Amino acid sequence: MTDPLVIFTPSGKRGRVAPGTTVLDAARQLGVDLDSVCGGRGICSKCQIQPGTGAFPKHGITVAEDALSAFNAVEQRYDDKRGLKPGRRLGCQARIQSDVLLDVPPESQLHKQVVRKAATHRDIRLDPAIRLAYVEVAQPDMHDPSGDLERLKAALAAQWEIDNLQTDLAILKNLQTTLRKGDWKVTAAIHHTSGASRLAALWPGYYEGPVAGLAIDLGSTTIAGHLCDLRTGAILASSGLMNPQIRFGEDLMSRVSYAMMTEGGAGEMTAAVRDGLADLVRALADEAQIPAEAILDVTLVCNPVMHHLALGLDPYELGQAPFALATADALDLKAGDLGLPTAPFAGLYILPCIAGHVGADAAAVALSEEPDRAEALTLIVDVGTNAEIMLGQKGRVLACSSPTGPAFEGAQISAGQRAAPGAIERVEIDPATRTPRFKVIGSDLWSDDPAFDSPVTGICGSGIIEVIAEMRRAGLVDATGLIGSPEQTASTRILPDGRTYAFLLHDGEPQITVTNADIRAIQMAKAALYAGARLLMDKFGTDAVDRIVLAGAFGAHISPDHALILGMIPDADPVNVTSAGNAAGTGARIALLDKTARPRIETLVRKIEKIETAIEPRFQEHFVAASAIPNGADPFPLTRARANLPEPSFQAGADRPRRRKRA
Amino acid sequence: MTDPLVIFTPSGKRGRVAPGTTVLDAARQLGVDLDSVCGGRGICSKCQIQPGTGAFPKHGITVAEDALSAFNAVEQRYDDKRGLKPGRRLGCQARIQSDVLLDVPPESQLHKQVVRKAATHRDIRLDPAIRLAYVEVAQPDMHDPSGDLERLKAALAAQWEIDNLQTDLAILKNLQTTLRKGDWKVTAAIHHTSGASRLAALWPGYYEGPVAGLAIDLGSTTIAGHLCDLRTGAILASSGLMNPQIRFGEDLMSRVSYAMMTEGGAGEMTAAVRDGLADLVRALADEAQIPAEAILDVTLVCNPVMHHLALGLDPYELGQAPFALATADALDLKAGDLGLPTAPFAGLYILPCIAGHVGADAAAVALSEEPDRAEALTLIVDVGTNAEIMLGQKGRVLACSSPTGPAFEGAQISAGQRAAPGAIERVEIDPATRTPRFKVIGSDLWSDDPAFDSPVTGICGSGIIEVIAEMRRAGLVDATGLIGSPEQTASTRILPDGRTYAFLLHDGEPQITVTNADIRAIQMAKAALYAGARLLMDKFGTDAVDRIVLAGAFGAHISPDHALILGMIPDADPVNVTSAGNAAGTGARIALLDKTARPRIETLVRKIEKIETAIEPRFQEHFVAASAIPNGADPFPLTRARANLPEPSFQAGADRPRRRKRA
Repeated sequence: MTDPLVIFTPSGKRGRVAPGTTVLDAARQLGVDLDSVCGGRGICSKCQIQPGTGAFPKHGITVAEDALSAFNAVEQRYDDKRGLKPGRRLGCQARIQSDVLLDVPPESQLHKQVVRKAATHRDIRLDPAIRLAYVEVAQPDMHDPSGDLERLKAALAAQWEIDNLQTDLAILKNLQTTLRKGDWKVTAAIHHTSGASRLAALWPGYYEGPVAGLAIDLGSTTIAGHLCDLRTGAILASSGLMNPQIRFGEDLMSRVSYAMMTEGGAGEMTAAVRDGLADLVRALADEAQIPAEAILDVTLVCNPVMHHLALGLDPYELGQAPFALATADALDLKAGDLGLPTAPFAGLYILPCIAGHVGADAAAVALSEEPDRAEALTLIVDVGTNAEIMLGQKGRVLACSSPTGPAFEGAQISAGQRAAPGAIERVEIDPATRTPRFKVIGSDLWSDDPAFDSPVTGICGSGIIEVIAEMRRAGLVDATGLIGSPEQTASTRILPDGRTYAFLLHDGEPQITVTNADIRAIQMAKAALYAGARLLMDKFGTDAVDRIVLAGAFGAHISPDHALILGMIPDADPVNVTSAGNAAGTGARIALLDKTARPRIETLVRKIEKIETAIEPRFQEHFVAASAIPNGADPFPLTRARANLPEPSFQAGADRPRRRKRA
Repeated sequence: MTDPLVIFTPSGKRGRVAPGTTVLDAARQLGVDLDSVCGGRGICSKCQIQPGTGAFPKHGITVAEDALSAFNAVEQRYDDKRGLKPGRRLGCQARIQSDVLLDVPPESQLHKQVVRKAATHRDIRLDPAIRLAYVEVAQPDMHDPSGDLERLKAALAAQWEIDNLQTDLAILKNLQTTLRKGDWKVTAAIHHTSGASRLAALWPGYYEGPVAGLAIDLGSTTIAGHLCDLRTGAILASSGLMNPQIRFGEDLMSRVSYAMMTEGGAGEMTAAVRDGLADLVRALADEAQIPAEAILDVTLVCNPVMHHLALGLDPYELGQAPFALATADALDLKAGDLGLPTAPFAGLYILPCIAGHVGADAAAVALSEEPDRAEALTLIVDVGTNAEIMLGQKGRVLACSSPTGPAFEGAQISAGQRAAPGAIERVEIDPATRTPRFKVIGSDLWSDDPAFDSPVTGICGSGIIEVIAEMRRAGLVDATGLIGSPEQTASTRILPDGRTYAFLLHDGEPQITVTNADIRAIQMAKAALYAGARLLMDKFGTDAVDRIVLAGAFGAHISPDHALILGMIPDADPVNVTSAGNAAGTGARIALLDKTARPRIETLVRKIEKIETAIEPRFQEHFVAASAIPNGADPFPLTRARANLPEPSFQAGADRPRRRKRA
């Protein structure tokens, strides 16, 4: 008689097993993804399956009523205590007696899929570095003395095939009481990384409490974190706080300067950022109502300067050519190394840096946006005080950074402010009347709505981009970035401002104007951004890209239409310009939930071609051309056709013929 | 033409190499033990060799004058700067042109032999876990960005075949400045342990400063350390200090009690012992006039309670059956884990514990005394408040511990004191006159010498053993341990002391007597010690041992003759009873200087048969018999014959026949 045939759905995996084999063992033999924490003791119920009975012509199988052994006492006890869904069986208890079809419901799959965002329908594979293992440990024996730890390791090796387990003094501290409290039955959290297994936590008995992980996006301005349930992939809490380093300097270079100029300055900033990270851990744990010690794994992404400061390394070398990182590779640390109040031996994975100016945050964006897997040639721009730019498609990815400065964040702008209630974030100028209207953060009404009564406090980054682009479209600013005189523009909103002019955007209290100096600042910033992108296009050998992805929190608020008019990004149809939101944070979350993403991004980062803008002569050329709006060299045909840009010239002697004019 | 023949002495290794091969490369090809730190750059001179010329009939070789290439510019530069001994060549520079005989002087051998002690002529192999490697690191390149650490690792892999180098945040901290200070040439200290290499320190350029290691014997009472030069094996400084835990309890069990009874008590004791260890590190570094940061590797041996307290583990379980250790295996930590002010990433190797009462100190004794390699059946006794006892020979080793208590250290003795100036340490009683004389610590004179004028303050451990043995030999004490009356002993030095008597040892200020209670305390202690040894002999199946080794600082001061009369140890010829001095400290030093000793002791510890005296019924029987002096069951023929012991009986009704009498 042949052995029973077993078919698992949805995987379709099939094979024959010896009669009497448990479903769990059959799943293991056939490589079916069936979870188990208790190792087949009928405690965890992770291995639940749903057997089918009757004929399944599609699978060519007929299943008898008694294909599985009868519901047994262990299953009955579990059902009485916690309830099993109708028809469900415990895979570790049910034994296969004849041909059977077994469905593995999603919650019993070890590697679940987590829907990341409805928009893209891309899923994150759930395969965290942390796995729980319930074990029964041998008791001490005076006739054969050995340490409790050695007996725990032996149990994990015998019952879970976990060899060479690494441990830490911090874990040893409570080992003996935990083993005795659990009556020699414990649940171990094992942290698996490439080639190594570490004991991350240990609980008495069968542990059913929270098992959490934390993905951190450490920015120069804000520190954001997603606290995730490592069993389901669900986000338990998301939160952000200001980077306490702000007090040492708004932007990265001012912090590098502080480290260089101040004795012990780097150390002060390290302490500040670690305090901030610890605060974030506590805040998220509070929000999710779990103990911080339930956080068993952490991933961290950040730019190179934050990377060094968080690690306690002086960022001195990052402030000057050749911008040498102390270490660029991914780091597999313990959360305790940075003083995080997580489980004492929680993992801390820091993604690799791409180059001295292109950090682990850019690597996280690459992990999230996967330019290396894209069919379309994709340009990814992460806008901050330093723009990180990637260009690529399947087979080849290039990256660079470009020093855009803080203008896009509202700094260096006369009425600039951070994105906060009262900040102008949307602007329209009627091309005929040249009258502006705007929206402020905190209100959905346009400012010309009779019901509009919000206070107006300044212009945030997205607002300044829109108003300059609108001024260019309305003929108030020429291609060189000069604001025309009241006469040249026939606008009463143009006010004299020293030797140049300013545009009155809001005639209230306070009066908000856009000065020619504001426009110059944005021109410098956008020219740097564009020149970086253009340089990558040169290196790739292309004049156009198929798709543009704006990453970063700021990228989410930029209007593609206005960014194109301004010439921030290469010419494109606005429908091909999308926002990826906080792609760096998403990348950190992917690395947290799916440990296989870690070697993947490490490999990709090694393959990425790194372009250093500072030593590329063409960067300067592109920068000069890109200071024009939209551009002095590249034609921007799609944008010009769509926006119908006028071509006034407000130079002194503007009636003389212009060197270059475009329709 | 055949390739040149090369013969190395003293190893005798020989082989043919391609003409033009450097001596260093030839040594590597032939597996000859020739040192090099600079990797063949003519900087370190570790690879010096002495070529012979002329005929060497014994080796069957004739060496031409030009067998090696001419003295070159690199050698000339080294000779000018530092001087080469006449005839010496740098192995990395001299190239082999024809048949040659090359002597490797001891200082050029990588694995030197360190003479440990003249007495035993046993050597320690010098093969420390720390090795220096001089490397040239590629400079950062903006066209191919990578971290400084990754380039250092690549250099170590390419130039020294060191792969998978582990690093630590502490090392990263100064990495960038060190690389630049050394103009991209650095000396790395690599810590090699089983299967892993760690970067322990990094210096700019070619490092010629101290490279030290520290072997620590952490006892309940004292912490002793040997600071060793890891290049030569020489002891740079030896020092000891009181274990600051003394304030929590004199003996181990009182410290375990303190941990059990006092909230946070274990933590206090951990802090105290770590402070003591740190003080020892600083004191030894000061004494040797080297910076503490030059200490790159540490080995530690201690009993199980100290082991747990040093590691920050609660010793609670060690205070009660089944005496379960939290961890028994050897531990490969970093010195920083215990807060030692050594190099930040120095290694810390803690030897394995044998059982809950037989610690890493006993393992160190086994490493030093090698009972597993002995031809003679050897009993090793490490006397302390807990005696650790090993019995074995090639093929089989047994171990146990026995609770002797603190009487041997002078505690529980009416005139007892620590071994310090003024303490009586040697005693003789004239068998005819029954008059005692003694020596005190700090004087070489006997007390009956007219020139003797030292103050006398009490009796130390070795003194109490001698006086009781002498009293037994002089007929002042009977086999049961009773002191006779003045009438029974015909001695005016016998004084009434309640219902028993005392012996007046020193009739001065203070008057020093040995009371019957003192004798009872020593009887209990020696009975425990003997019973443990006898139990191991039972298990081994023997009634006699060939050799007895007294280990420990106290063991070094015990007179074998008196120990035998007292019946502390099994009957033997005193010439076969030797002291091993501080064998635990020596074992720690062996593990420090020879990394191959580490797996060796780990293997031996696993093989040792552990006997738990507390659960062996025969232990109690042996203990009862051993309370007699020398013994109530074992005949002690050698000792009785040698010491000519009288057999008085001072029991009430002593004229009744005794149950057992021996000649």
